[in-house]
Amino acid sequence: VKGGGAEVRLWGGRFHSGPAAELDRLNRSLPVDWRLWRQDLAVSQAWVEGLREAGVLGAEDAGVLASGLDEVGARLEQWTQEGWAAAGDEDIHTLVERLLAEEVGEVAGKLRTGRSRNDQVATDGRLWAMTAVGALEREIRGLQAALVDRAERYVGLVMPSYTHLQRAQPVLAGHWLLSHFWPLERDVERLGDARRRTAVLPLGSGAVAGCPFPVDRARLAGRLGFEGVSENSMDAVADRDWVAELLFVIALLGVHLSRLGEDLIVFASSEFGFVRLSDSFSTGSSLMPQKRNPDPLELARAKAGRLVGELAGFMGVLKGLPSGYNKDLQEDKTALFGAVDTLLVLIPAVTGAVGTLELDEARCEAAVDAGMMATDVADALVRSGMPFRKAHDEVGRVVRAAEAHGCSPAELPGVVLREASAAVAALPLAELLEARASVARRAGEGGTAPDAVAAQLRRAKARLDLRPPQQREEAHSR
Amino acid sequence: VKGGGAEVRLWGGRFHSGPAAELDRLNRSLPVDWRLWRQDLAVSQAWVEGLREAGVLGAEDAGVLASGLDEVGARLEQWTQEGWAAAGDEDIHTLVERLLAEEVGEVAGKLRTGRSRNDQVATDGRLWAMTAVGALEREIRGLQAALVDRAERYVGLVMPSYTHLQRAQPVLAGHWLLSHFWPLERDVERLGDARRRTAVLPLGSGAVAGCPFPVDRARLAGRLGFEGVSENSMDAVADRDWVAELLFVIALLGVHLSRLGEDLIVFASSEFGFVRLSDSFSTGSSLMPQKRNPDPLELARAKAGRLVGELAGFMGVLKGLPSGYNKDLQEDKTALFGAVDTLLVLIPAVTGAVGTLELDEARCEAAVDAGMMATDVADALVRSGMPFRKAHDEVGRVVRAAEAHGCSPAELPGVVLREASAAVAALPLAELLEARASVARRAGEGGTAPDAVAAQLRRAKARLDLRPPQQREEAHSR
Amino acid sequence: VKGGGAEVRLWGGRFHSGPAAELDRLNRSLPVDWRLWRQDLAVSQAWVEGLREAGVLGAEDAGVLASGLDEVGARLEQWTQEGWAAAGDEDIHTLVERLLAEEVGEVAGKLRTGRSRNDQVATDGRLWAMTAVGALEREIRGLQAALVDRAERYVGLVMPSYTHLQRAQPVLAGHWLLSHFWPLERDVERLGDARRRTAVLPLGSGAVAGCPFPVDRARLAGRLGFEGVSENSMDAVADRDWVAELLFVIALLGVHLSRLGEDLIVFASSEFGFVRLSDSFSTGSSLMPQKRNPDPLELARAKAGRLVGELAGFMGVLKGLPSGYNKDLQEDKTALFGAVDTLLVLIPAVTGAVGTLELDEARCEAAVDAGMMATDVADALVRSGMPFRKAHDEVGRVVRAAEAHGCSPAELPGVVLREASAAVAALPLAELLEARASVARRAGEGGTAPDAVAAQLRRAKARLDLRPPQQREEAHSR
Amino acid sequence: VKGGGAEVRLWGGRFHSGPAAELDRLNRSLPVDWRLWRQDLAVSQAWVEGLREAGVLGAEDAGVLASGLDEVGARLEQWTQEGWAAAGDEDIHTLVERLLAEEVGEVAGKLRTGRSRNDQVATDGRLWAMTAVGALEREIRGLQAALVDRAERYVGLVMPSYTHLQRAQPVLAGHWLLSHFWPLERDVERLGDARRRTAVLPLGSGAVAGCPFPVDRARLAGRLGFEGVSENSMDAVADRDWVAELLFVIALLGVHLSRLGEDLIVFASSEFGFVRLSDSFSTGSSLMPQKRNPDPLELARAKAGRLVGELAGFMGVLKGLPSGYNKDLQEDKTALFGAVDTLLVLIPAVTGAVGTLELDEARCEAAVDAGMMATDVADALVRSGMPFRKAHDEVGRVVRAAEAHGCSPAELPGVVLREASAAVAALPLAELLEARASVARRAGEGGTAPDAVAAQLRRAKARLDLRPPQQREEAHSR
Repeated sequence: VKGGGAEVRLWGGRFHSGPAAELDRLNRSLPVDWRLWRQDLAVSQAWVEGLREAGVLGAEDAGVLASGLDEVGARLEQWTQEGWAAAGDEDIHTLVERLLAEEVGEVAGKLRTGRSRNDQVATDGRLWAMTAVGALEREIRGLQAALVDRAERYVGLVMPSYTHLQRAQPVLAGHWLLSHFWPLERDVERLGDARRRTAVLPLGSGAVAGCPFPVDRARLAGRLGFEGVSENSMDAVADRDWVAELLFVIALLGVHLSRLGEDLIVFASSEFGFVRLSDSFSTGSSLMPQKRNPDPLELARAKAGRLVGELAGFMGVLKGLPSGYNKDLQEDKTALFGAVDTLLVLIPAVTGAVGTLELDEARCEAAVDAGMMATDVADALVRSGMPFRKAHDEVGRVVRAAEAHGCSPAELPGVVLREASAAVAALPLAELLEARASVARRAGEGGTAPDAVAAQLRRAKARLDLRPPQQREEAHSR
Repeated sequence: VKGGGAEVRLWGGRFHSGPAAELDRLNRSLPVDWRLWRQDLAVSQAWVEGLREAGVLGAEDAGVLASGLDEVGARLEQWTQEGWAAAGDEDIHTLVERLLAEEVGEVAGKLRTGRSRNDQVATDGRLWAMTAVGALEREIRGLQAALVDRAERYVGLVMPSYTHLQRAQPVLAGHWLLSHFWPLERDVERLGDARRRTAVLPLGSGAVAGCPFPVDRARLAGRLGFEGVSENSMDAVADRDWVAELLFVIALLGVHLSRLGEDLIVFASSEFGFVRLSDSFSTGSSLMPQKRNPDPLELARAKAGRLVGELAGFMGVLKGLPSGYNKDLQEDKTALFGAVDTLLVLIPAVTGAVGTLELDEARCEAAVDAGMMATDVADALVRSGMPFRKAHDEVGRVVRAAEAHGCSPAELPGVVLREASAAVAALPLAELLEARASVARRAGEGGTAPDAVAAQLRRAKARLDLRPPQQREEAHSR
Repeated sequence: VKGGGAEVRLWGGRFHSGPAAELDRLNRSLPVDWRLWRQDLAVSQAWVEGLREAGVLGAEDAGVLASGLDEVGARLEQWTQEGWAAAGDEDIHTLVERLLAEEVGEVAGKLRTGRSRNDQVATDGRLWAMTAVGALEREIRGLQAALVDRAERYVGLVMPSYTHLQRAQPVLAGHWLLSHFWPLERDVERLGDARRRTAVLPLGSGAVAGCPFPVDRARLAGRLGFEGVSENSMDAVADRDWVAELLFVIALLGVHLSRLGEDLIVFASSEFGFVRLSDSFSTGSSLMPQKRNPDPLELARAKAGRLVGELAGFMGVLKGLPSGYNKDLQEDKTALFGAVDTLLVLIPAVTGAVGTLELDEARCEAAVDAGMMATDVADALVRSGMPFRKAHDEVGRVVRAAEAHGCSPAELPGVVLREASAAVAALPLAELLEARASVARRAGEGGTAPDAVAAQLRRAKARLDLRPPQQREEAHSR
Repeated sequence: VKGGGAEVRLWGGRFHSGPAAELDRLNRSLPVDWRLWRQDLAVSQAWVEGLREAGVLGAEDAGVLASGLDEVGARLEQWTQEGWAAAGDEDIHTLVERLLAEEVGEVAGKLRTGRSRNDQVATDGRLWAMTAVGALEREIRGLQAALVDRAERYVGLVMPSYTHLQRAQPVLAGHWLLSHFWPLERDVERLGDARRRTAVLPLGSGAVAGCPFPVDRARLAGRLGFEGVSENSMDAVADRDWVAELLFVIALLGVHLSRLGEDLIVFASSEFGFVRLSDSFSTGSSLMPQKRNPDPLELARAKAGRLVGELAGFMGVLKGLPSGYNKDLQEDKTALFGAVDTLLVLIPAVTGAVGTLELDEARCEAAVDAGMMATDVADALVRSGMPFRKAHDEVGRVVRAAEAHGCSPAELPGVVLREASAAVAALPLAELLEARASVARRAGEGGTAPDAVAAQLRRAKARLDLRPPQQREEAHSR
């Protein structure tokens, strides 16, 4: 077995017996935390350098340890390539120390000087999370680009907008598509804020009370890409705010994907028929050959539920914990890895579905019925000085009459129309009930008029043209 | 690769292109649902038999399919032994159909007659859950037995009970230990109720509208160990109440373990010092050689948080789904498997920790201070006719005086005592402040008096002596 | 102010100063728990009787207390009628004791003999919950009756069923409506199980260690309508499983309402147009006169989210609590009252919306297109001996051809049809593609065929004809 | 009744019948949203001004409306003073429009021009939330000040720190207290970020498609204290990210309070005995006169659970909603108001408990036993060149020997000590086992040495000396 050999524990000198198998099965975190090996090695390299600068480690020992860690890295890299199944060690720190000892002998034990697994695992985890934020941002940018692409393609198409899933007012399809761009933009912002708070170094906090060797923590931070150091060692080893915050940002992103998914599922139904998903991003049925199922979007909807549960579950883990490190905190990794993995699989599938969807232009336009311009009629009365509330009532009567006649308000016999509302009858109804004109009237910032949407599209594209997220984030936080 | 070979999908005749890699990565559930292979085969065997009885399948075809399924079972059994890494098929149903075709050729396609993955996966899942309930019950019984064992060993030891984590009244240690037995007993009851509702057969509901072949569903149910059949095909394929209910029962069990864990963590602190965990069920520190950490109990506390999140997350998945099968339901397996696995690893470790713990009798008894018998003093005043409320005030003044003098109420100078409360001064204080006597006075059912605890212990043991949970459950539900 | 006068606390003899205003504002639970006054009085009456039987209370004192409690009840009844704003007392127990003292003087203090607020509040709460279960059952029965009523009215109407919100197979509208009946039936079952576990008496457990007076707990239980007594006093005062279980049952009921709501919201859209809600159970828009918004159903969908959060939140409260009563448990009431109140307002509105909805028969039937009978065609091939999997492929090709021609499979030119699938071309396609025939073929138990639905309807109505839920529940639990 | 009179609905012209009582009871949000009246009036005043500037409203009408709104404000102010019970109107917008009509007649109807309740309620809510953030920051600052005050008072006291609730290493009490300061500091940061994202104006988005009148949204934003305007009208009326984000920040703050609470509850137990809460911030027992219960801290622990549930519940509400405004969003107010109210009651009580707590210096120092300096002994071996891992083993043997002898390592007979570890025996053990020296060795940034804690204290106080949070936040966001 890869990674086999004698197992190591980092403790136990005092114990008469080793852990029971039942405890080991519960306690051993290597199957989860082996993914941190790159971070663990980077942190250890930085720590060796820090100990050397502090005069705690001689240059020779430091050199041996650094090369040894490189060797360990090469072995772990190879195991990873080979689809490594985790070894029997307790956790990644223990595994690395065992392998290091295999490379360099007893001097390996000097790596642990002044350091504890408590500050080490928090540092490894934050480093992993900082990378994960970058990966998530890239995926979000990809999805935003797909939305922008579709918005440009269908920018001028008129379709209904909905409130309460009832037809409300006509909008441009580009406006609708971009309405899913901005929530993602907020997610990117939130990820940046969360990353800033994650990039605070706990290393040098020891087990809980601080480090008794004069290692320069600010230099450590710089070396590892952190932006600051923790202020209090007890807080540093017990703080998992950064995990909770990332889980929240991820869950809210999941919610946004679920809302996009719901729109597409509904619009792809036969009854709406606005959206056609590509073959590559839908599935068939084992029993019903005619089906074209929007699976990736249903899974987007479902994953939002799970991600919210992950968030609530982890915050429940933190609730009521006493000071200092508690083993409960070990749950942070399963939660965070799971949530990030979920999105890194989910977003590309949603991006694919969005990027390849087609709109049925005829059905979209046909769905814009005259009743949706009722507000426009009321607004016209308002322009002539009638209070909106009264205008609303006038139009309401016309709509009721049209409903009773089973026709559009514009098709009402003149006498019926006049009886329902003389004021409405006096208006140029046909013109007012024209969908494109209605769209064009909503010309303010954020409105659905063509110029407003064009401006919105420019602003959206400007966001995608920015420097890489991390640079931007760093520039912003200065 | 085990399970390799050409991949199969159960749909796609109409599609111009296969699913994109991004969709496949999201959609493919085999890595999760391969665990259902035993259930999937059992369900398929029953279905073959049902189709044969209904005259839909000839005896010869049925025989070929039955033998073929046996062969598939043998192959999957072997792969499982060999630590099988899942194949590239979409899900377990697809894999089984592919393997069956490899065994018996085109006739394999007859297995799908009148059946859909929608009713099949619901049936597989329920069957798995019915087994899981049995496994959980066995583990709970083991933990209850460990509690009873410890309760018997320390039944007569007097220790403080707590409210608000403040010392309240003396109790027998056996009473305290059994207070963690009864919540588990309720969990067993709830598991039984949940199992009863799980044992309702969806098979024969087709994709959503029912089965067009005259398969006898009641016989199917009997053959597979179900207790009834679903009433409505649309409900049957969309119903995941049984998953939610099991997740709830599991999460509440987790909460019980967390409360037991918290008690033991606090009692194992140096300051309390009541409990000593065995070496086998505690761990050491990488930095502090003197530590004896209650890891399994901290993880019990933490897992409760996660399990509650799992429950909330899955109920969030179900919320707002429209009628019929939706792909969202696929999330049921990850949630349920994860929750069951968590407990099957967690309970044995908690059982081990409980079964090997020792109480420090001297420290337990020393912690019962005189102030804890204040209620007994008040009760004595009540017996002499004073309203409790007044008695409470009288004793309150004595406690305050004792606190001011830095001594126990019984050690107060007589004059001070009389000044604080003449009524209290008139009582046989020393006797009233004796802990064992206080314990003995609480003799009602459920109280901490020795006889009451002995009776409680007998009742607890009677629960453990019952027939196996499933038999009992079945007997009860008749 | 009603309820005014000097405030009372049930403790404080030892304290130099009263609670700070900041603590009082946080701690005082009367604004929440005043609703328990009927239960608190009933429990106190039973306790007086218990103390008297045990010889702890003389007949005269007992009589005075009993009459006094009656008087207190009369006062509280009147305040309640007058829309009482809660008094300044700490909690309902304190208020009742103060009012009792106003009625009967110092002897009021005897009521507290052997009892603690810890066992008292748990008893009050369980009693309240037992009543709440009855109220919820009545509301659910009402909603089920409305579903049955609509199912009968539209029992024969054919409409599409959906999976993945894609048209799947034709079903009877009665079948669809009843698919929402059975989840509610499971909710009623779960409520019954939860009630059984709630009806276990904690009274007589004292503060934590049991009661030092020989009160007969079994008689107390019988007097108050409980079905058993708690087994362990420490567990009894700390156990809130019954709250968690009720919150779960309520949340899952909420999920069922949300799924019913989603169906109706989607079906009431202009694009589906199957459902028309009555004016009385929809609302209009402040800006768009033509809107008919399904507000009660959107709120049903939303409340499910909140109720799941309530459940998760309260289980999070319980997680990690140490033995005995902890103040954290006070949160049980806000959670439970809120959840029950939500449903008692929500269900009637949903019932109203369901009971008054109309189906647009023409639109329902028009939505059943020929493609939905594809499975029937495949099934016909299966009946002639072709394996389903091959049949599925044959039909898939036909569907693809029809899609390319923009017509229904039955309308394909013969040559095209034969090219797509000779086997399908040989079938009586027009007959197979008839929706009613398709429905009629699904005749097994739980299927959508007219006879099967008629039987289902009979079974549903039989559930509604049962004796009142509580009687039934009691009979069942014997 | 205050607020009485004819009820108003803002819709209904088309409807044959009004809403059923059951719908009204569910739907009417005034009992919840009346709290928004100040915001609703401010938003309306700004809207009047915007309409006037846009030339939609004449100067005269604008003046009438502005004065009328002032009058309405005066009436609502008075009702609020008088402890107003809400009126029968549907919501706060409807109530305000009704009152305005009472003041100014039909012209009141002009207020609704170009505006919808959809953009209005989102604007009102954000404005309320911006104020709530300020209030929360003030409360957090108060709690931080109390922690700093206690940290200064007990800065030099030595006490144990804990990991796994096992004694770990000695720390200064000031260090422990400040470990609860920094999580709150992160909460303040997160509140600032959330506020920035809340301060984006939705007004001018109409019902969903934008505003058809040329109102200058940027000026509106400036007038109301917003920092930007929304980019897309469909997103603007449907976006409740700001609610979710605030609920998250609040829940995490709740988690921090729960951890502080847990520390104090444990440290206030008789067994730890480190902390004594003041009479003003503890409570007594109805049955046990000697109790001093840490109620506010238990409630802090409990509220964290509820707040996490509130967060999960509301995110569950958002999950899967389709585009545009849906009635589900109405739940945002109950959730947000409830969470903010909870903290505005909870934090002052926790602040009071912290600000008045006393540490028992003798007990704190007595709890630092020699075993806690084991790491210091190992570190000393490391300084002499021994790898830490070997040093850890050497010390482990000494600890085990001391445990077997029932004494501290320093008290071991020399021969036993030497047998356990010659290396340890060669060290100046007594000096190494001195707690203050151990503390002093952890001198790096964030460590527990006196100088490091003094520096930490200065940095903490600097945070409290900053300009008011809002100014700071604004400066930062430029």
